[in-house]
Amino acid sequence: MSEDPLVLSVDLGGSKILTAVVNSKGDMLSRDQSITPAVKGPEAVIQAILESTQRALNQAGMTTAELEAICLGAPGLSNPKTGVVFTSPHLPGWKDVPLRDIIREKTGVETMLINDANAAALGELCYGAAKGARNFIYITLSTGIGGGIVIDGEIYAGSLGTAGEIGHMTIDTNGPKCNCGNTGCWETLASGTALAREARQRIADGAKTSILEYSNGDINKVSAETVHNAARQGDALAEKLIAQTGYYVGVGLANLINIFNPELIVIGGGLSSIGDRLLKPAYKVAGERAYKAAFKSVRFARAELGKNSGVIGAAAYAFREMKKSKEV
Amino acid sequence: MSEDPLVLSVDLGGSKILTAVVNSKGDMLSRDQSITPAVKGPEAVIQAILESTQRALNQAGMTTAELEAICLGAPGLSNPKTGVVFTSPHLPGWKDVPLRDIIREKTGVETMLINDANAAALGELCYGAAKGARNFIYITLSTGIGGGIVIDGEIYAGSLGTAGEIGHMTIDTNGPKCNCGNTGCWETLASGTALAREARQRIADGAKTSILEYSNGDINKVSAETVHNAARQGDALAEKLIAQTGYYVGVGLANLINIFNPELIVIGGGLSSIGDRLLKPAYKVAGERAYKAAFKSVRFARAELGKNSGVIGAAAYAFREMKKSKEV
Repeated sequence: MSEDPLVLSVDLGGSKILTAVVNSKGDMLSRDQSITPAVKGPEAVIQAILESTQRALNQAGMTTAELEAICLGAPGLSNPKTGVVFTSPHLPGWKDVPLRDIIREKTGVETMLINDANAAALGELCYGAAKGARNFIYITLSTGIGGGIVIDGEIYAGSLGTAGEIGHMTIDTNGPKCNCGNTGCWETLASGTALAREARQRIADGAKTSILEYSNGDINKVSAETVHNAARQGDALAEKLIAQTGYYVGVGLANLINIFNPELIVIGGGLSSIGDRLLKPAYKVAGERAYKAAFKSVRFARAELGKNSGVIGAAAYAFREMKKSKEV
Repeated sequence: MSEDPLVLSVDLGGSKILTAVVNSKGDMLSRDQSITPAVKGPEAVIQAILESTQRALNQAGMTTAELEAICLGAPGLSNPKTGVVFTSPHLPGWKDVPLRDIIREKTGVETMLINDANAAALGELCYGAAKGARNFIYITLSTGIGGGIVIDGEIYAGSLGTAGEIGHMTIDTNGPKCNCGNTGCWETLASGTALAREARQRIADGAKTSILEYSNGDINKVSAETVHNAARQGDALAEKLIAQTGYYVGVGLANLINIFNPELIVIGGGLSSIGDRLLKPAYKVAGERAYKAAFKSVRFARAELGKNSGVIGAAAYAFREMKKSKEV
């Protein structure tokens, strides 16, 4: 590695691509954000990644030759060892795409791949709210729910690399249908998508609420954000729906506490920016449902890297892997 | 350690105490089984452990002086580092009992303590169905459901030592009340207790079944075993109830597969001896509910050590810990 090694990292999401040049301190030297052409399929998305990569390099005044590595944070199920994305609920048409090798070939740069939530967990471990932690769970509450499991200071990826799909643990066997094919997954009840769905349902049922006013009067534009905006202005239904979502967040937290007895749970993702209205009921329910001893020993923290946790975390992964390969 | 080091291990259960002298190959030189005087509280149980210990030693023709260590496998929540049992649903009156230190003081032998399901997991890892595995989950399906999580060849015990309480993950938020205080825990729907409860309920509701014939005509004597006996003779309700329990076993298996992406799941415990009637529907449901890639990569195995997994596993723990302390 050079004295100030640089990594280009990509946080590939279902709606946006975030690309950055990052140094080993976790500072971003450049940052490019673009729309993911998800509906156009894998080829279009890969082309968009390459274009974003070029813009991030241009912005930093660099060429690929100056990069130590590229690291891709990918949503859905993937194998970090083979660099293959198996499937991704938010990327239609992706099936066993060898994304890492494609990007490596197109750029000529050493390329790695990691699950996006695992990347975010590493970002928080190296540069954020989980510094120094040995055993912790990172949870992203967003349109879906993702997770990163850190055990003994390392990402636990499982036998194939797909571990951490905590959003797809069933918490209500007969609950709503999930994108993954299962029913009653945690993310069908405790995600931003769940909150928006419940709000639309209540509005369609004729409930008295101002939520529509915050959604341009269009029921299709009701989102977790517009529900939150209504709650901030004292809308009773909005408040109630957020507390209900918090309740379900708490049910899943209790499961993770009983299963992992972690020292720390870090919560990030867009939905978590609602803050106390969502998280206070969540922590309360977790305390009621989990074993007392385990609950008392866990610390809750909010993610510190915000929207950059994935892109900074993917870079952190690259730096850690390069360090390991030098040690061997 | 002497050339043929011996450990006395105790599998403390809510209904029975199993004590054995075990060598480093996992062979039992003696084995004593007695009733746990659980309702009489901690002091009576501790006295029973000591008496059982003496009988197991006598049986092997030994004294405590010939033991390298004693290892206690304890049910419920405990801390292997401090040797304290916090609480145990099947041991009334136990609250923060320093069991390890009490036994150490009374016997004068180096004593260790490990959770009973973790012990069983180690037993299967060292001498049973999980030999050579790196990442696997041990599940005991019994009156309750317990678990042992093995990551990178070691028990994962969590920050306080209480990890692995997989029986107390909620799989049905509004489900039946659990002994642990929570509702809809996996063990309220997929344990032997759950199967017996459902059978009694159906019988009370007037269902047509021969289950009572296998229970001395006494509804209070209906158990998982008597339901199984009726099913073996073709009783339709008994068959249906076992399949329904298997369904819920499968829901929890899917959760563990999505969360851990383990290479192996080992299933033990009394209820699992029902075999295919229970486990076939369980595996089917797990395959339907878990991510396909993760499901395909997991292998299911039945525990090989049977009723001795806990007592042999506790000895395995002692041998591993002694080896580690010699290596340091």
